[in-house]
Amino acid sequence: MSSTATTGPARAEQARVEQARATVQVYDTTLRDGAQQEGMNLSVADKLAIAPLLDELGVGYIEGGWPGAIPKDTEFFARAAKELDLRHARLAAFGSTCKAGSQPHEDAQVRALVESEAPVITLVAKSDLRHVERALRTDGQENLRMIAATVRYLVGLGREVILDAEHFFDGYRYDPVYALSCVRTAFDAGAATVVLCDTNGGMLPDWVTQVVSEVRAATEGRLGMHAHNDSGCAVANTLAAVAAGAGHVQGTVNGYGERTGNADLLTCVANLQLKHGTTVLAEDGLAESSRISHAISEITNISPYGRQPYVGASAFAHKAGLHASAIRVDPDLYQHIDPVAVGNDMRMLVSEMAGRASIELKGRELGFDLAGQAELLGRVTQRVKDAEAAGYTYDAADASFELLLRAELEHGRVPHFFDVESWRTFVEHRPGKDGQVDSEATVKLRTGHGRMISTGEGNGPVNALDHALRGALVGTYPEIEDFELIDYKVRILDTQQGTDATIRVLIETSDGVASWSTVGVGTNIIEASWEALTESIVWGLLHHGVEPR
Amino acid sequence: MSSTATTGPARAEQARVEQARATVQVYDTTLRDGAQQEGMNLSVADKLAIAPLLDELGVGYIEGGWPGAIPKDTEFFARAAKELDLRHARLAAFGSTCKAGSQPHEDAQVRALVESEAPVITLVAKSDLRHVERALRTDGQENLRMIAATVRYLVGLGREVILDAEHFFDGYRYDPVYALSCVRTAFDAGAATVVLCDTNGGMLPDWVTQVVSEVRAATEGRLGMHAHNDSGCAVANTLAAVAAGAGHVQGTVNGYGERTGNADLLTCVANLQLKHGTTVLAEDGLAESSRISHAISEITNISPYGRQPYVGASAFAHKAGLHASAIRVDPDLYQHIDPVAVGNDMRMLVSEMAGRASIELKGRELGFDLAGQAELLGRVTQRVKDAEAAGYTYDAADASFELLLRAELEHGRVPHFFDVESWRTFVEHRPGKDGQVDSEATVKLRTGHGRMISTGEGNGPVNALDHALRGALVGTYPEIEDFELIDYKVRILDTQQGTDATIRVLIETSDGVASWSTVGVGTNIIEASWEALTESIVWGLLHHGVEPR
Repeated sequence: MSSTATTGPARAEQARVEQARATVQVYDTTLRDGAQQEGMNLSVADKLAIAPLLDELGVGYIEGGWPGAIPKDTEFFARAAKELDLRHARLAAFGSTCKAGSQPHEDAQVRALVESEAPVITLVAKSDLRHVERALRTDGQENLRMIAATVRYLVGLGREVILDAEHFFDGYRYDPVYALSCVRTAFDAGAATVVLCDTNGGMLPDWVTQVVSEVRAATEGRLGMHAHNDSGCAVANTLAAVAAGAGHVQGTVNGYGERTGNADLLTCVANLQLKHGTTVLAEDGLAESSRISHAISEITNISPYGRQPYVGASAFAHKAGLHASAIRVDPDLYQHIDPVAVGNDMRMLVSEMAGRASIELKGRELGFDLAGQAELLGRVTQRVKDAEAAGYTYDAADASFELLLRAELEHGRVPHFFDVESWRTFVEHRPGKDGQVDSEATVKLRTGHGRMISTGEGNGPVNALDHALRGALVGTYPEIEDFELIDYKVRILDTQQGTDATIRVLIETSDGVASWSTVGVGTNIIEASWEALTESIVWGLLHHGVEPR
Repeated sequence: MSSTATTGPARAEQARVEQARATVQVYDTTLRDGAQQEGMNLSVADKLAIAPLLDELGVGYIEGGWPGAIPKDTEFFARAAKELDLRHARLAAFGSTCKAGSQPHEDAQVRALVESEAPVITLVAKSDLRHVERALRTDGQENLRMIAATVRYLVGLGREVILDAEHFFDGYRYDPVYALSCVRTAFDAGAATVVLCDTNGGMLPDWVTQVVSEVRAATEGRLGMHAHNDSGCAVANTLAAVAAGAGHVQGTVNGYGERTGNADLLTCVANLQLKHGTTVLAEDGLAESSRISHAISEITNISPYGRQPYVGASAFAHKAGLHASAIRVDPDLYQHIDPVAVGNDMRMLVSEMAGRASIELKGRELGFDLAGQAELLGRVTQRVKDAEAAGYTYDAADASFELLLRAELEHGRVPHFFDVESWRTFVEHRPGKDGQVDSEATVKLRTGHGRMISTGEGNGPVNALDHALRGALVGTYPEIEDFELIDYKVRILDTQQGTDATIRVLIETSDGVASWSTVGVGTNIIEASWEALTESIVWGLLHHGVEPR
């Protein structure tokens, strides 16, 4: 070991001190304010799994919850102290100032914050006089005393104290003198940071600029911004606050939070680092942000939002035929950043807008060089257009597109793995079976090994058909044992015709390593499903290097 | 008729002229740029169904597509001219300037714009010199000629011409003199509006403010803003442009669009009207925006985003806890706007009181006075909660909700019209039938007239089942001859489990006068469809005053 090397814990502490000094601190509240999101319910284990991902992202602070008020959060801090080994972030416990008429050391809720052993304590306090009077049912002076006493008490115990000034912006517009006095009181009592909260989320950037500038001019300590997205401006409001002098931003991964959510921390930090040139995350966390975003959504079990800026699955997905030809030549002209900077990828979508250029580009992505083959490209483009007019879509069905492309290629014909003779599926609700419904399917087909007949059951007709098809093929092609149908989507394309409408089915299949998607279309949902099912098997066999047997 | 009354078409034209004069014009591009969204594929029928909803919202312009380039869009304009009766909006056809080295009247694409008969033509043109040289492969002078010639040609034919200056912001930062010359050229040639496009979506509000202010100072005509959300700032960028002098905003409903989407027009207009006090929509469209947002997402079949500002299902949903009691007393202190202004509702997620209140309200809507019946309300609320947890939704299935409610009411029990003994459906692809697939279903049930067995065919298993069910009932209840299944929707609720996922079916039935909707849920699509089908018959018979026979 070199003599200049610092030990692990010392290095971690040093990293934390550096982040604390940073121009703009990054404070994550996914585990506390993010967990207020409708449909989200994080267990202690979930929180303990998310915290290391936030640390890996490189945030300076992780707010873990409200110990004392929420039993699960008390347990989180107890376990976090033992189980978490954070490299960059300091853990923050969220709580309230002491109650009106009480002292902090007598207040059970404040004591629980101390007992959480979190090095950082974030106190929420009212700064809107109307809330003081109507919700706290006390007066402005007493509220200031509660702020001063609680901040001083916790600072005296060696904690870093952050004050979240709740409803600050609405309060400032109502009574700026009082709102400012809350900020000054907290700084005077030793708060490291006072966070101006747009709790109702209704601010617009111009208003944020004005208020933060005025508070900046009137006070000296570090100011923070806590924004919600009710006006669709949470990210812009956060940037406006930083430009006006805030040195601390709060937010949540994926913008989780109550109502419309909090400011999406991933978007905020990407904008600050890539557009303002202000490094706010430790190490190269930003380049991991797409992965971390998705890993956290696996834990929260909230479906990822494809259109999420920077890290969303569609964030760098190009569809327009108009641009495809040029994107090929000059990707930088068509993307606001290089997707690698946030760990994301450019993707080309094939669609009816597609001209030959995007077909060519998509072909290249799939490993087919179509450059210069004008006649072939024209044929494929026409087939794609015809198919899309009939209801097919290749945006989300790369495997079906590849089969279409191969069918047009002279030397890349799709191998013929099996001949279908017939198939049928039925669903039956029989008398005396207490509501039970049976689904069954039979498939008859031929491979080089002979004629195969297989019957499968399932919890629906398509599931039964899937089982029967695999049953008929597995003797000849044991490779398909690894294939699993992992996603099945149905869309009615023309909703004005009841059950006569055209139906599109998208199927995603996995072999445990990769996954691929196929599409089927018809007026009959079973027929459309059959088409997508058989294509998924054919593509899978093809890509496992299987020859027809 | 009063002598001061204007005729329908004259009133419509007057409304359009007023919108054209408005301080800030609202230009919707859901049908064109929104359709670039990954996974979206709008049919002509879809577009014809969405356009009247946009008109109802009160936008000034509806961009319908690119006639000539996309056959479906050519058809849309042809049918729109005959079938749409727009009250507020003018239809705009999107297209490109003439090609380098050609004249507009010789350019097939420009001619298709003219032939679309759209009163407004929006021309996309390059304004970034790098794009001119690398993508168009021509020079700056020729590009200016193409703009001037095409605008002049179309204005000469009496069309309102809007120029979309593509990649304007990037272009302006690269070469402001050239970018400005594109804007000036378009105005000089007669363009009504020049729209500054942040095509890559990478701008931040401060930069937009700066660029739009400079262009505003250097030119005289109406400027517009077209923003994408790649930095998470599309709405803020749009507001910044308006504050800097833009008088025309483009966007899409629900923020649909390529990559991260376009500026969400609903959020933009709500901010402009409710926060800036600038009325931009005709009549009271804003109060309908939640309903219109959801109706459009039913047509696009893109799942609504719960956290969408203003109109999202969670936008005014408060997780009870810290604020619960205070919110009830003083909602204005906890909401940035009154949700009624956008046709949305406050919801309390944990508070049972709020649940009961909305059930009571819903009951009253359907003609059942539940006031004061606390025990009954509690039971119904619990049943609704359990059913929604299982995947049911009653938002769009009033008839199923009424049947649930009646089942809990002492004196309103659902009459028992028939007893199902069994049903089955099968789909078969037989050998030697040249790809033909047969669907058949058999239903066995009892009415007061005896045991009925009926077999039906159809173009799919649900269609066959529908025919068989009607066949079994029509002898006893001839009233159902008037019932017709007019809409059938399927949604996969949990997409992580392939064909094992929970499936929700919504069915709309009409008797030629009224229509009603029912819901069914299950892992088996046929079983879920059967549930919705039988409920649609029961509700229909009930509301035709039929007694069980």
